[in-house]
Amino acid sequence: MPDPLPTPVITLSMGQLYPWKSSISLNRQSNRAMYLQIVDALIHEIVSGRLAPEYKMPGSRYLASLLELNRKTVSIAYDELTAQGWLKTIPAKGTFVSDSLPQMRPVAPTDAPTSTYLPETSHFKFATLVSSFRSSPKAQLRITDGSPDVRLAPTEEIYRWCRQVAKSATSLRYQDEQGDPYLRDTLAQYLRETRGLVCQTEQILITRGSQMGIFLAFQSLLRAGDTVIVGEVSYPEANRVITLCGGNRQEVPVDEQGLSTDAIKAICQRQPVRALYITSHHYYPTTVTLSIDRRMKLLALAQKYGFAIVEDDYDYDFHYASSPLLPLASLDTHGCVIYLGSFTKCIAPAIRVGYLAAPTDFIRAITPYRRLIDRQGDPVMERALAKWIEAGDLQRHVKKSLRIYRERRNFLSQYLREHLGCTFSFQEPEGGMATWVRCTPSVDPLKLAQYTASQKVSLEGVEDWQHYRGIRLGFASLTSDELARGMDVVVDGIQHIQKK
Amino acid sequence: MPDPLPTPVITLSMGQLYPWKSSISLNRQSNRAMYLQIVDALIHEIVSGRLAPEYKMPGSRYLASLLELNRKTVSIAYDELTAQGWLKTIPAKGTFVSDSLPQMRPVAPTDAPTSTYLPETSHFKFATLVSSFRSSPKAQLRITDGSPDVRLAPTEEIYRWCRQVAKSATSLRYQDEQGDPYLRDTLAQYLRETRGLVCQTEQILITRGSQMGIFLAFQSLLRAGDTVIVGEVSYPEANRVITLCGGNRQEVPVDEQGLSTDAIKAICQRQPVRALYITSHHYYPTTVTLSIDRRMKLLALAQKYGFAIVEDDYDYDFHYASSPLLPLASLDTHGCVIYLGSFTKCIAPAIRVGYLAAPTDFIRAITPYRRLIDRQGDPVMERALAKWIEAGDLQRHVKKSLRIYRERRNFLSQYLREHLGCTFSFQEPEGGMATWVRCTPSVDPLKLAQYTASQKVSLEGVEDWQHYRGIRLGFASLTSDELARGMDVVVDGIQHIQKK
Repeated sequence: MPDPLPTPVITLSMGQLYPWKSSISLNRQSNRAMYLQIVDALIHEIVSGRLAPEYKMPGSRYLASLLELNRKTVSIAYDELTAQGWLKTIPAKGTFVSDSLPQMRPVAPTDAPTSTYLPETSHFKFATLVSSFRSSPKAQLRITDGSPDVRLAPTEEIYRWCRQVAKSATSLRYQDEQGDPYLRDTLAQYLRETRGLVCQTEQILITRGSQMGIFLAFQSLLRAGDTVIVGEVSYPEANRVITLCGGNRQEVPVDEQGLSTDAIKAICQRQPVRALYITSHHYYPTTVTLSIDRRMKLLALAQKYGFAIVEDDYDYDFHYASSPLLPLASLDTHGCVIYLGSFTKCIAPAIRVGYLAAPTDFIRAITPYRRLIDRQGDPVMERALAKWIEAGDLQRHVKKSLRIYRERRNFLSQYLREHLGCTFSFQEPEGGMATWVRCTPSVDPLKLAQYTASQKVSLEGVEDWQHYRGIRLGFASLTSDELARGMDVVVDGIQHIQKK
Repeated sequence: MPDPLPTPVITLSMGQLYPWKSSISLNRQSNRAMYLQIVDALIHEIVSGRLAPEYKMPGSRYLASLLELNRKTVSIAYDELTAQGWLKTIPAKGTFVSDSLPQMRPVAPTDAPTSTYLPETSHFKFATLVSSFRSSPKAQLRITDGSPDVRLAPTEEIYRWCRQVAKSATSLRYQDEQGDPYLRDTLAQYLRETRGLVCQTEQILITRGSQMGIFLAFQSLLRAGDTVIVGEVSYPEANRVITLCGGNRQEVPVDEQGLSTDAIKAICQRQPVRALYITSHHYYPTTVTLSIDRRMKLLALAQKYGFAIVEDDYDYDFHYASSPLLPLASLDTHGCVIYLGSFTKCIAPAIRVGYLAAPTDFIRAITPYRRLIDRQGDPVMERALAKWIEAGDLQRHVKKSLRIYRERRNFLSQYLREHLGCTFSFQEPEGGMATWVRCTPSVDPLKLAQYTASQKVSLEGVEDWQHYRGIRLGFASLTSDELARGMDVVVDGIQHIQKK
């Protein structure tokens, strides 16, 4: 309870002593009305405990002269504070801080308090370990771990569709949280035609990129302690989601055919397995394609032992050798696979539209979940993409990018063979946007990245594969000239490191 | 292990018996090449267990004649299947299904299997209870629970900015998961000017609408069983998130001043409290504004008992009486408040950009979390909004909407007083987009909604307040004419119900 306060009669003289001028700092350039700035400042004094309940406020004439303002401005501020309940006026006595407010513990003026509620739970500690956005603001050239070239992105066409779609009021209202039905229709047809995936409109849930798909899949599949099989190297963001959702990761070897199905079988024989995460088509990070017999063995194991396969097919469209293998989802006759795809790699990371395809019962069960974390998607962008796909522009864009990226991959392979054959071992990838190289023991990728950064070339993501001395060299986002420029710096860096 | 299979010599004749024509159904209108359709179909036969390992395939000439295709098409399909590892050719013997594939358990042909992995965990069962998107496709007029009029939305300007922003490659690449720094800067200034909220750029996390803010706040604050205080009526989507995140909801009464602080205090004296959820400005659903002394008491309680206040200020901008009260966050000197806002109500539900403002330590801790559920926001839209706000267009748009919505509120109040004074009790709301009415016992809101639906007028969300016989009549999204038309149907409905 508040301490008994000095009576108004005594505080009358104190009102004159209060540092009004420094506590009410006015900004004459601000868009906020002057009287509201006084209101804000006085409220701040009250909530900071410096102006206590029953405190007698100075007269408006006195305060106005102190602040070099019109008296009327101060009067309006007092009226506003009175209307809001901060002050009250007692006729013939004056204006006081309301006595119905609690006495606040006084604090030093500070703009940025620390939170009182920062949790110390285990998953929170985990979250703080997650590497954050890797910005290398000074890099002039970025060798990413595999991003599309956004300079090829047909954003002009897509945003033209957006403007068109946004003219319809229907598209601007709240929408089906499963995603635009029109896009789901179009996508079902696209998936059928490009990868033999037979699914109906109601088997598709539109997500924000594949990251939300990964989160939704594991958050809904896992209970604390459930076993999830992943490769000994795997996509770090998926590993983090699995840990966050309480999963217990069991690692299996990854060789040139992909995940070892023998090792998966051995785990299944030992313990119950809830799920498996795989980038089957271009394995992340090593880029290998899971062979057909491993695919069939994996599906047979999933059927036998009843685990879910979360198939993250983030860059199916970009395959440079013969025709791409069908996704596991297209071979799944028993409802074992949750299939994730995205437009991020086809178009640009900024276009945050992905999808999750699975049996209808699972989609129905997780759709309300999606609603709780993020009401719905972007109905304007979703419909715009549907129109753009329907016009055949996605296939045209993929075809064009495929040709360009193949040239860039070939250029990088040739460069690696000619200049780095002794330092890097690699297999030319059959698809995707990056080449996986392993360094000889004499080269520490982290030191190499530090050197290239000093030359304004960033080598992104090397810290994730330090243990394997691996680097993913993203070729898709850079022209041959840029690749040559970046790789020349890498060559310099290796000489620099080996000289030491 | 697969059963021993008939030797190729024996299956030779069986190849002629296989129902090739019905199992390879070709669509000559499809965009998928004919040979790939054969590939897909044969893979489907193998994965379904109907074509077993070591099965001898028919000759390409025979199959081509059966399918009425050029022999070359079948040969290319066989070559592709061989390259992928499905088939293998033994010279002088023929082409066989690969013996390195596992024998699959035969299944009946079906396009839509049910999942083998649908979980039965408790939160999953909960999720299935969540009411899904309420679509009333046949309604010609929707009385929502409070949505903006999207016909006023300045999407033309905003998407013009989007197109402009998307020209810059930087905006299309992966971005800071905390959100566009430029928007966070602009927003910090906007929050300072419009609601006296002093926060720095690093204290803001951009979310997708306020729903993601609610999810992030509770998912990071709560451990299973933690107590969360909510009003006895409250925002249902927030209640669901709290339950999903393991929270134990404790309800307190809501009166005409808002949440009862006495009841909150009583709970705090009884048990540890982790968090409280409140829509302080226009309480959802009852629309009352939390009084100043309750605000101060609530903050004092949060300080004393160490709980977090999740303040969902979803429609701060729309206040029709005097100047709006400052949010709790603006009065928070001790880091007790997590402040949530959104552009959804200002502009349109389709513009999925919201924000969470809190002390820097909390923002730093939860930002990696946001990355795991949804990599990042929409950098193009975020930058476009920043430009649009900077040009002063948000304030202009709010001012214009405010004038229009006030007229609509007034119109609805007058209508209610004139025509429904005996049936509905209500207080004219000081802000927001809906008027909260309570029905007399003789009128069941659900039956009323059924009647209006039959007249193609939807009364949305009534099921949430059935227990209170309450209805939120959203006035903002409808013109006076539309309101009159909708309310006339409500009046008819009441007569219809009471006649029975």
